[in-house]
Amino acid sequence: MAAVDKYNVESAEILANSALHLPITQAAPIYEQLLTIFPTAAKYWRQYVEAQMGVNNDDATKQIFSRCLLNCLHVPLWRCYIRFIRKVNDRKGVEGQEETRKAFDFMLSYVGADIASGPIWMEYIAFLKSMPAVNTQEETQRMTAVRKAYQKAIVTPTHHIEQLWRDYENFENSVSRQLAKGLLSEYQPKYNSARAVYRELKKYVDEIDWNMLAVPPTDSCKDQMQWVAWKRLLAFEKGNPQRIDSASNKRIIFSYEQCLMYLYHYPDIWYDYATWQAKSGSMDAAVKVFQRALKALPESEMLKYAYAELEESRGALQSAKKLYESLLGDAAETTALAHIQFIRFLRRNEGVEAARKYFLDARKSPSCTYHVYVAYALMAFCLDKDPKVAHNVFEAGLKQFMHEPVYILEYADFLSCLNDDRNIRALFERALSSLPQEESIEIWKRFTQFEKTYGDLASMLKVEQRRKEALSGTIEEGASALETSLLDLISRYSFKDLWPCSSKDLDHLSRQEHFGIYVEASSQKNGGFMLGSSFE
Amino acid sequence: MAAVDKYNVESAEILANSALHLPITQAAPIYEQLLTIFPTAAKYWRQYVEAQMGVNNDDATKQIFSRCLLNCLHVPLWRCYIRFIRKVNDRKGVEGQEETRKAFDFMLSYVGADIASGPIWMEYIAFLKSMPAVNTQEETQRMTAVRKAYQKAIVTPTHHIEQLWRDYENFENSVSRQLAKGLLSEYQPKYNSARAVYRELKKYVDEIDWNMLAVPPTDSCKDQMQWVAWKRLLAFEKGNPQRIDSASNKRIIFSYEQCLMYLYHYPDIWYDYATWQAKSGSMDAAVKVFQRALKALPESEMLKYAYAELEESRGALQSAKKLYESLLGDAAETTALAHIQFIRFLRRNEGVEAARKYFLDARKSPSCTYHVYVAYALMAFCLDKDPKVAHNVFEAGLKQFMHEPVYILEYADFLSCLNDDRNIRALFERALSSLPQEESIEIWKRFTQFEKTYGDLASMLKVEQRRKEALSGTIEEGASALETSLLDLISRYSFKDLWPCSSKDLDHLSRQEHFGIYVEASSQKNGGFMLGSSFE
Repeated sequence: MAAVDKYNVESAEILANSALHLPITQAAPIYEQLLTIFPTAAKYWRQYVEAQMGVNNDDATKQIFSRCLLNCLHVPLWRCYIRFIRKVNDRKGVEGQEETRKAFDFMLSYVGADIASGPIWMEYIAFLKSMPAVNTQEETQRMTAVRKAYQKAIVTPTHHIEQLWRDYENFENSVSRQLAKGLLSEYQPKYNSARAVYRELKKYVDEIDWNMLAVPPTDSCKDQMQWVAWKRLLAFEKGNPQRIDSASNKRIIFSYEQCLMYLYHYPDIWYDYATWQAKSGSMDAAVKVFQRALKALPESEMLKYAYAELEESRGALQSAKKLYESLLGDAAETTALAHIQFIRFLRRNEGVEAARKYFLDARKSPSCTYHVYVAYALMAFCLDKDPKVAHNVFEAGLKQFMHEPVYILEYADFLSCLNDDRNIRALFERALSSLPQEESIEIWKRFTQFEKTYGDLASMLKVEQRRKEALSGTIEEGASALETSLLDLISRYSFKDLWPCSSKDLDHLSRQEHFGIYVEASSQKNGGFMLGSSFE
Repeated sequence: MAAVDKYNVESAEILANSALHLPITQAAPIYEQLLTIFPTAAKYWRQYVEAQMGVNNDDATKQIFSRCLLNCLHVPLWRCYIRFIRKVNDRKGVEGQEETRKAFDFMLSYVGADIASGPIWMEYIAFLKSMPAVNTQEETQRMTAVRKAYQKAIVTPTHHIEQLWRDYENFENSVSRQLAKGLLSEYQPKYNSARAVYRELKKYVDEIDWNMLAVPPTDSCKDQMQWVAWKRLLAFEKGNPQRIDSASNKRIIFSYEQCLMYLYHYPDIWYDYATWQAKSGSMDAAVKVFQRALKALPESEMLKYAYAELEESRGALQSAKKLYESLLGDAAETTALAHIQFIRFLRRNEGVEAARKYFLDARKSPSCTYHVYVAYALMAFCLDKDPKVAHNVFEAGLKQFMHEPVYILEYADFLSCLNDDRNIRALFERALSSLPQEESIEIWKRFTQFEKTYGDLASMLKVEQRRKEALSGTIEEGASALETSLLDLISRYSFKDLWPCSSKDLDHLSRQEHFGIYVEASSQKNGGFMLGSSFE
């Protein structure tokens, strides 16, 4: 409950609302608290920073921007930022203009791909146009800068793409009607393509709730649909719908980053992002994504394996090993699976002896379950081709895990591979003599199957009878349940998916168990009809 | 449909009703027809025989009784019989009386255990009492006969048991008050026990529809409940509620015989009856039950195996072999399972060479599926400990069954036992190069599992990638589906029932496939956004 409460969206919204009406000194701790829980909630960052801007706390404002901008690719927040920058720089004259321009470039490199970025492009172009130019050279420079900005804007799928195109047409025509023709006809198809993509993209974007707070995955339909909506948007972007080369990856990165603002706690998004980076050739970027992922989800075993796998794949074995060791660090938290995976890792990368050494240590760990023995034994058998070691490991495990039916069955499977029916039979007998009735059901089942394969008719029938006797208590109590039933016969004379009867017959006969015929019949036997003696 | 129509209960009832109003010459063929389909329908036999009795066709009457009585343990039908016998014998004086008495004994030995047999016991006793006695010796004989009849009747759980006990008390008191005391106190507990059993038995009997016609098992709730009701009644009788020794088996036989009048087409009842007979030590009786069962259900494979198993168990190998051969007689009807079971039978009873010889023949049969190869190979491996023969058989089968994914998997399982990873890998590759995509899903799955056990990280990842490529068509079409997903990673890093994530995570991730995220995303890629060129 504590974990759920932590991410309670309703109380967060109430808290954020209450902060609106408080003086900044009281509101700030509330925002800090909210942003610790929701570090990617652009709307809270914006509210926070606007509160600081409202009282002209420039230093605090700068600080807040530096903490949030790169993780929150959110147009309203960034517009807030540019408003702040312009306010600050307006005082500084030419130098200030140059800084504002840099800030615009910085912003557009981060959120210029957003479908809602149209207004920032416009603002940027208007800003460029407003730059003072004291001579023709500067005028030409300014014109070139404006043109470049337009040419980027009109190939970006935004809500304002049509207006930007019209503005661009006007701009070129105002510069030179003659030149305009060539340039516009060059850019027309690119614009057309971007516009078509915009129309398609809008469908995906419209499905997304841009107000959502990042909470761990829940079963709620809304959350699931958001997850699906993001997956679809990402898949769309990955399809490179504009058939653009260099900028396509930038768009995809942008989409992932934006997605992670909302699906911050979704391991699959982190994983997809990292593997996509790796496949695109940016190993370092992939590693960085995994590092961020583990910051977001420090408890996620699977992300650690994923990260370790990436490192192992690219030969960074020390880094991979550290990740495995981090899974094994805390003895109380360590899982049997972590032992197994580490043994395999060692076997793959450091050889048989390293794996063996670790196994011997792991055996002493309280988290060493029978799985570790099974995994190690099968590794010895399948990879090292050493049935003797495997057999010894299974036998050693038996001392500890005789009470684990699954271990017995794994051991029996292994002996089946060795075709060692004498030892299989002995193993079943040992296990059955020590396991309680309710734990031995599967063992009896497999013993029966075993005799069907390895035994003769008599041993087959005998083990079936013993199984019935063992599983129905004493003979006296469950006499009718002990009868060999036609279902048993059918199972004796079937082979794989071949049956000596129709599936209808089988259905019919299987119903018997549902009706509890035997239970009722045998219960009356403890009743009171034993008055009479014998009949002459 | 024809088979169902044959057992149409409604039209049978209409037909039987119509026969009531027809002269016997026209009614007889109708009865014959009905009784061919429902040979155990006592009510039709009775109606038939009463029609003959109505027109005094004594010969025909006798004939009909001889055809039905022993298969129809039905009190009203037998009372009809005794009425007929008495009518015939009444004309013959003393000699006739003796014959009637024998008929009574005959009847009581068949239906004297019926819960509704009270009136016949009464009629019998009345008949005995009415026998003439010309001297004291004959009077004593008569009295002894009456006493014996009473003493049997009062330990039989019938609806009239209380009245019979009162009658018996009166009888003994009328003979000798002094003697009565001793006899009655001896029989009182036996009577008490029978009465208690009667009260319990009645509950079971009341559940049974004594008017039901014997039709093959259906899905109808009514039929199922009747089946259950009979099973419960049988279980009750088998519990030997009266704790009587010798007569208990007679009661059980009576119940089975009566049950089979109604559940004539239920193989499990026949099987239970036969195995019960065998367990009670009456092997011959068990064999006879099986013979009758195969007359009732000549198509039932499972009953043939059951019968053959009984014969084999008791060493009647020739008889068992004949049954197996009857399963193999008609080449068109023979099943692969019949080949397999016969090979096993031969291996058990005639040795390796006989089994091998039959396998070589069976291979040429059109009904020889891959199962026969698998079964024979595994027999050679597990029983004869001859992996080389097994390997050769699998390899020979491959020529014919390369297109059967299940055969490939069985072969791979076998090679896994041999720990022969080189050949497993080669087998998978051979199979995958010839199987169509939709048939290769399981092979790919197993290939992936195989590399997880036998391969290194690179081969594991490679086969997963190949699997995705193979199963999703070309790369161009399903690019997103080809991405390694977190689910794949989870499957790579799980071991048996250990997972590197919670079951909640797993549920969450598995939903992805339901939403068809990839399908939609990839379908748009064939759409029309390829207008643009590259982005500068």
